[in-house]
Amino acid sequence: MSDPAPEPGFVSLVSAGPGDPELLTLKAARRLAEAEVVLFDDLASGPVLDHAGPQAELIAVGKRAGRPSARQEVVNQLIVQHAQAGRRVVRLKSGDAGIFGRLEEELIALAEAGIPFEIVPGVTSASAAAAAFGMPLTRRLTARRVQFVTGADITGQLPQDINWAALADPTVTTVVFMGQRSFPKLAEGLAMHGLPGTTPALLAEAVGHPGQRLIASTVAELAQMLQAQGPASQPGLILYGPLALPKQAG
Amino acid sequence: MSDPAPEPGFVSLVSAGPGDPELLTLKAARRLAEAEVVLFDDLASGPVLDHAGPQAELIAVGKRAGRPSARQEVVNQLIVQHAQAGRRVVRLKSGDAGIFGRLEEELIALAEAGIPFEIVPGVTSASAAAAAFGMPLTRRLTARRVQFVTGADITGQLPQDINWAALADPTVTTVVFMGQRSFPKLAEGLAMHGLPGTTPALLAEAVGHPGQRLIASTVAELAQMLQAQGPASQPGLILYGPLALPKQAG
Ligand SMILES: C[S@@+](CC[C@H](N)C(=O)[O-])C[C@H]1O[C@@H](n2cnc3c(N)ncnc32)[C@H](O)[C@@H]1O
Ligand SMILES: C[S@@+](CC[C@H](N)C(=O)[O-])C[C@H]1O[C@@H](n2cnc3c(N)ncnc32)[C@H](O)[C@@H]1O
Repeated sequence: MSDPAPEPGFVSLVSAGPGDPELLTLKAARRLAEAEVVLFDDLASGPVLDHAGPQAELIAVGKRAGRPSARQEVVNQLIVQHAQAGRRVVRLKSGDAGIFGRLEEELIALAEAGIPFEIVPGVTSASAAAAAFGMPLTRRLTARRVQFVTGADITGQLPQDINWAALADPTVTTVVFMGQRSFPKLAEGLAMHGLPGTTPALLAEAVGHPGQRLIASTVAELAQMLQAQGPASQPGLILYGPLALPKQAG
Repeated sequence: MSDPAPEPGFVSLVSAGPGDPELLTLKAARRLAEAEVVLFDDLASGPVLDHAGPQAELIAVGKRAGRPSARQEVVNQLIVQHAQAGRRVVRLKSGDAGIFGRLEEELIALAEAGIPFEIVPGVTSASAAAAAFGMPLTRRLTARRVQFVTGADITGQLPQDINWAALADPTVTTVVFMGQRSFPKLAEGLAMHGLPGTTPALLAEAVGHPGQRLIASTVAELAQMLQAQGPASQPGLILYGPLALPKQAG
């Protein structure tokens, strides 16, 4: 199954996992070792990049990458240009590349330029957060659905088009990405649509990074806490649903 | 970040990924190499097990493991017994251990027996399936939610308590696990709740295994095909939602 190294001019869209370099897949580590250029996001940086070989040019393309904001079109162009120059390109994206990572735009740019590519799937931060809490994302009887949603649309606000029947369902594990800021507002809407404020809620910040912070609370209390706290300084996920810990469940 | 090997009597609940042994995480590979006992499911077997060291006792506990059906309680007992015998136990589960894998029951058994454990998150087959199709699971404008559901409850039938407003939402990527058999029935319900039969649907069987089969279709046509085909011979996922491929999207 260990397929040969990609040809020159090939782009690997590689999932970096949640940050702990041990949660890279073997394939991601190999693609990094073979890469001539690695274009990486803020959240796909740090020790994960140690897997890149000495030949690799490492290029930061995240929001904090020097420019006021490295816009998505600029990133798309860079990927295409390096591939067209005949290099083996790794585009390294945090968590699983297919989840809230603007992968679609990069796929369209590659397809339009006729550049061959692959996607290397990875561990999403949602799985890592649940694991850090010692929790499953689904439960045979009480959580037969799990959903990932975003707390921020392109303007940074809570999306307007929320399916409240889906999100206020108490029999589901919901994972909110990029949602610390908008969670107080989300929680208000959830309450209006019948989700009890006492529903368990977990905050998982910087999972697998040195600043990891895990807080077990309820939807109502976590909303209050985040409101009082102000802007979050770390990436974080909020999980809510039937999330009592197994010891309590026994 | 490379923490020391677990103590004797410790249980690692390890995610094996979708089947391709290169989609193991580095941590999973290391836990396998260190293990004294590996209890594995049908779907977490094959070349993935090559990562186990020569000292490891490999024990199949899946449905095809000799007994007419290795019931979950038997698996729980085995894990606890091997840990209590002071061995380093790896419980290897397919995909991400926290997704539709009966992890909750094993966590409760470990907590009740007072046995220390960790969960090693991994690549869910949902991420691998989307990657195999060259698709993202979410899209910035058209799929701001992704949900994983099961097509089979404990009796093997389509669950009774489906949240149709959540599942018939055309602006969401839905991934159905264990759903080939019940998909015709699910598709009927989705149509009744307003999801167009022309909604793109993908069937991904045995992703990363030798028998991998990928079919791009629509909800209505895939339902017909699965109805006509009879029982599936391989594990598979069905994805539906705004899943036109990037080339078509341009
Ligand atoms: C642009 S999205 C990318 C998500 C990524 N593709 C994944 O599957 O995890 C970035 C958001 O993911 C979440 N996130 C990513 N890594 C995280 C981590 N290590 N701990 C907590 N949240 C994380 C945060 O909500 C962050 O704002
Ligand atoms: C008991 S569930 C475990 C799911 C696993 N925890 C995960 O995250 O992928 C087993 C189901 O997962 C799906 N599955 C697991 N591995 C698969 C693969 N390699 N290809 C397609 N579907 C797979 C199938 O729906 C299968 O019936």
